[in-house]
Amino acid sequence: MKTLLIVYHSMTGGTLQMARAAAAGAGGEAGVGVALLRAGEAGAEDVLKADGYIFATPENLAGMSGMMKDFFDRTYYAAFERINGRAFLTLVCAGSDGRNAAQQIDRIAAGWRLKPIADPYIVCTHAQTPEQILKPKMITNHLSFLQLRSLVKKTGELELSLQSTSIPAPASDEVIVRIDAAPINPSDLGLLLANADWSQAKASGTLRHPVVTAALSANAVQAMAARIDISMPVGNEGAGLVTEPGSSAAAQALVGKTVAVLGGAMYAQYRCVKVNQCLVLPEGASAAEGASCFVNPLTALGMVGTMKREGHKALVHTAAASNLGQMLNRLCLADGVSLVNIVRKQEQEDLLKAAGAMHVCRTDSPTFLKHLTDAVAATGATIAFDAIGGGPLAGQILSCMEAAVNRGVTVYSRYGSTTHKQVYLYGSLDMSPAVLNRNYGMAWGIGGWLVTPYIEKIGPLAFQELKERVARELKTIFASHYSHEISLSEALQPDVIAAYSKRATGNKYLINPNKGL
Amino acid sequence: MKTLLIVYHSMTGGTLQMARAAAAGAGGEAGVGVALLRAGEAGAEDVLKADGYIFATPENLAGMSGMMKDFFDRTYYAAFERINGRAFLTLVCAGSDGRNAAQQIDRIAAGWRLKPIADPYIVCTHAQTPEQILKPKMITNHLSFLQLRSLVKKTGELELSLQSTSIPAPASDEVIVRIDAAPINPSDLGLLLANADWSQAKASGTLRHPVVTAALSANAVQAMAARIDISMPVGNEGAGLVTEPGSSAAAQALVGKTVAVLGGAMYAQYRCVKVNQCLVLPEGASAAEGASCFVNPLTALGMVGTMKREGHKALVHTAAASNLGQMLNRLCLADGVSLVNIVRKQEQEDLLKAAGAMHVCRTDSPTFLKHLTDAVAATGATIAFDAIGGGPLAGQILSCMEAAVNRGVTVYSRYGSTTHKQVYLYGSLDMSPAVLNRNYGMAWGIGGWLVTPYIEKIGPLAFQELKERVARELKTIFASHYSHEISLSEALQPDVIAAYSKRATGNKYLINPNKGL
Repeated sequence: MKTLLIVYHSMTGGTLQMARAAAAGAGGEAGVGVALLRAGEAGAEDVLKADGYIFATPENLAGMSGMMKDFFDRTYYAAFERINGRAFLTLVCAGSDGRNAAQQIDRIAAGWRLKPIADPYIVCTHAQTPEQILKPKMITNHLSFLQLRSLVKKTGELELSLQSTSIPAPASDEVIVRIDAAPINPSDLGLLLANADWSQAKASGTLRHPVVTAALSANAVQAMAARIDISMPVGNEGAGLVTEPGSSAAAQALVGKTVAVLGGAMYAQYRCVKVNQCLVLPEGASAAEGASCFVNPLTALGMVGTMKREGHKALVHTAAASNLGQMLNRLCLADGVSLVNIVRKQEQEDLLKAAGAMHVCRTDSPTFLKHLTDAVAATGATIAFDAIGGGPLAGQILSCMEAAVNRGVTVYSRYGSTTHKQVYLYGSLDMSPAVLNRNYGMAWGIGGWLVTPYIEKIGPLAFQELKERVARELKTIFASHYSHEISLSEALQPDVIAAYSKRATGNKYLINPNKGL
Repeated sequence: MKTLLIVYHSMTGGTLQMARAAAAGAGGEAGVGVALLRAGEAGAEDVLKADGYIFATPENLAGMSGMMKDFFDRTYYAAFERINGRAFLTLVCAGSDGRNAAQQIDRIAAGWRLKPIADPYIVCTHAQTPEQILKPKMITNHLSFLQLRSLVKKTGELELSLQSTSIPAPASDEVIVRIDAAPINPSDLGLLLANADWSQAKASGTLRHPVVTAALSANAVQAMAARIDISMPVGNEGAGLVTEPGSSAAAQALVGKTVAVLGGAMYAQYRCVKVNQCLVLPEGASAAEGASCFVNPLTALGMVGTMKREGHKALVHTAAASNLGQMLNRLCLADGVSLVNIVRKQEQEDLLKAAGAMHVCRTDSPTFLKHLTDAVAATGATIAFDAIGGGPLAGQILSCMEAAVNRGVTVYSRYGSTTHKQVYLYGSLDMSPAVLNRNYGMAWGIGGWLVTPYIEKIGPLAFQELKERVARELKTIFASHYSHEISLSEALQPDVIAAYSKRATGNKYLINPNKGL
């Protein structure tokens, strides 16, 4: 265990916040302990015990604060020649310049033979008048960090890049989260890859700021008119350490906690989010384990919830061997809900059957429609959630439901059964048009479905219950498994893009934005 | 004006019902007045004034009733030689035979030189015991009548025919309606014509019982498996005279009234329906004027009602120059609801514009999609009712709605707008598959729509209000115009079928089941 000593002095709160942010950030590192001490309370013993230092001071009257100077005065000789070569960083919260305070500390540190790990980090509050200088400060964490951006260009290119960005100051009900894990979900790929042609992708940029570009079809550019030349951050969800809280008690309570977060822009080293976007992971759960707490678990819960709210008693799911599909299967088994799984291949059927699935229908089977009708009849499923979107499948599901409902019915009804049959399209794995033969009477519906409007519909209390259930069953029903953990840079490598854009069963990618930097 | 005298005597109600039914039937004839008198109250003056007679008696103790005999006793000589050649009919309500009572009356009528217009009509109640004989009677009208039937045969043929059928006895809350007008709505054609190939239709049968057959495709036969070899009556709605009531006060109150009726099997001379299926037409409205009180008016009202219930503020309608479309246009103008009409041709646009339509978009225009987007943006329409069903139109409407909603929106949303866009398919003028490109985000739905489930949803009180509104505005908003009035036989002539199956704008057919027989 290495110890980082953070010594600070603060009169109006600015330096304190910088010191706390540093403490939170460092506290999340494995094998690092943090001692955060006010300058007046820190002594030589603390200096000797520590393996590295952060000195955080305001610039008062064009120099470090008197209390900070006093700390050095009291400890300099006791530590002299005993801490040579240890690392240090200076943080200055200044009203106008800050460089003089930093230089003063640099000189003392040089005397101690300490090694700077970076240039002094100076935050300027631009407090110039006595009133401004004496006012309590709220410091934005100006540490720049990397964020993955996707940009559709008028010229017909998609550009992925890592941009340096500043973390905003958290509002009272916000926290800054250092993102340590963010999954690449199918729902991220549209925004991220924009359906570009990655076979001819070109990589450029630098190691820290890589860029990759790929061609877009004219149709694709037109369809995305509203995002042309707007650099979009990506990543629906992630998890990581809360490094800096807003002023509210709820925000302060999260410092040092590992949380899962929903809200976009998660393919980044940091993210400022509201407290109520965070789900505190249970004791012992890592960020990687909690990275997929929202999209798939809430989608699975939302499907079962929608089924119940709309009066159906069983459901059909397509692309059922996906990470989400496997989760839905576990959820339905746990909750005693009948589920008909539709997959493409034998190996996917085997995978689901091994996980206890009762009904699996393969589209590659010549008797697919009969099997599906049998399964729908056996379960009474009259609602389906379809990730495919294109082609005949949604219509086939409705046809099989109608056939199942009509089994044993002897009275002809020209408008078909009066049982409402619903297919929700929540994905578009097949981008081709959906084709509806409409041979399933008049009591049917097809529509788009997303988990977000569902959550709005059920209200905050029910949403909270769902989140708590996810946390409770994070390692069982709602566990996600990743085949690859990649860095932000790797997420921009053409061969890696080609791999994760395939969405192949069993290939699930996790981005660790703080890996390899 | 000719007068029909109906003289009856009744102890247990059977003969009374027969007499009333006869009175109701005759009362509906133009130029016929009916005098319905109890035997004890009828005198020679009534006999002399009348142009024809119905004598209705029970058979009591193997002969006509004493009171009936008394009527003849009191009037015979006063009328003798003064009523020669007038027409008469005898009705007998008998417990076992009835022929003796009929013969007794026949002999007296022969003395008066009356001319029988038909054999005595004898209803046998099979009341054999004293208890049965003295019990109040409920008489079924056994008059046979013609009913149009549609039959899908296993052999791949559709057969249309006129079948002789018996009118059932009305239950207490039922009435028998003589159908004088029944429209051929697009919603009737599926059941009636079953998508058969009428180009090779073969006519056979007799004048009174014509038959026409046409070939069905194997697919069509398969799709209609549930109705194979089941002879189906046809005709969703109609109007006519109530000729025989059930025992309830509500049923009795309808005798002699002209009512509109919803309920199927209206292509027939008679129909037994529940009182609450009847809508009494306003004073002076003919059966032809009231024949289309339900399907189109309730569909138009249901569309506007669905629009409001589902939170939309304007609507789109396709095939908008149809009879229904014109009605919807009048309804929306009257109610201040913005309507976007989609038609195929200039003449249809002209027709709607002449009727005051504000927004008409023509699919034959090269700028159709732009016009539709403009109209949708101007009205704020986010719901459409589509009679076409097949092809790209439903998807195009959704695309235009999405484009209209997004006008002026500068923030890119990868899932499209959050405004729900809905298209209901209520018809299938184009039987080809519907093709959905899904370029309208995720907040959309497509589904079947029928007026019947809508009416169930709104409940009986709201339904009653709708019906009353239709009756009130029958000659304005809800007026239907017919280009052709045809008989049941004509409805089975191949050239007539070819004409009405086209559903051409302005060509609307009305069947008068009591015409030409």
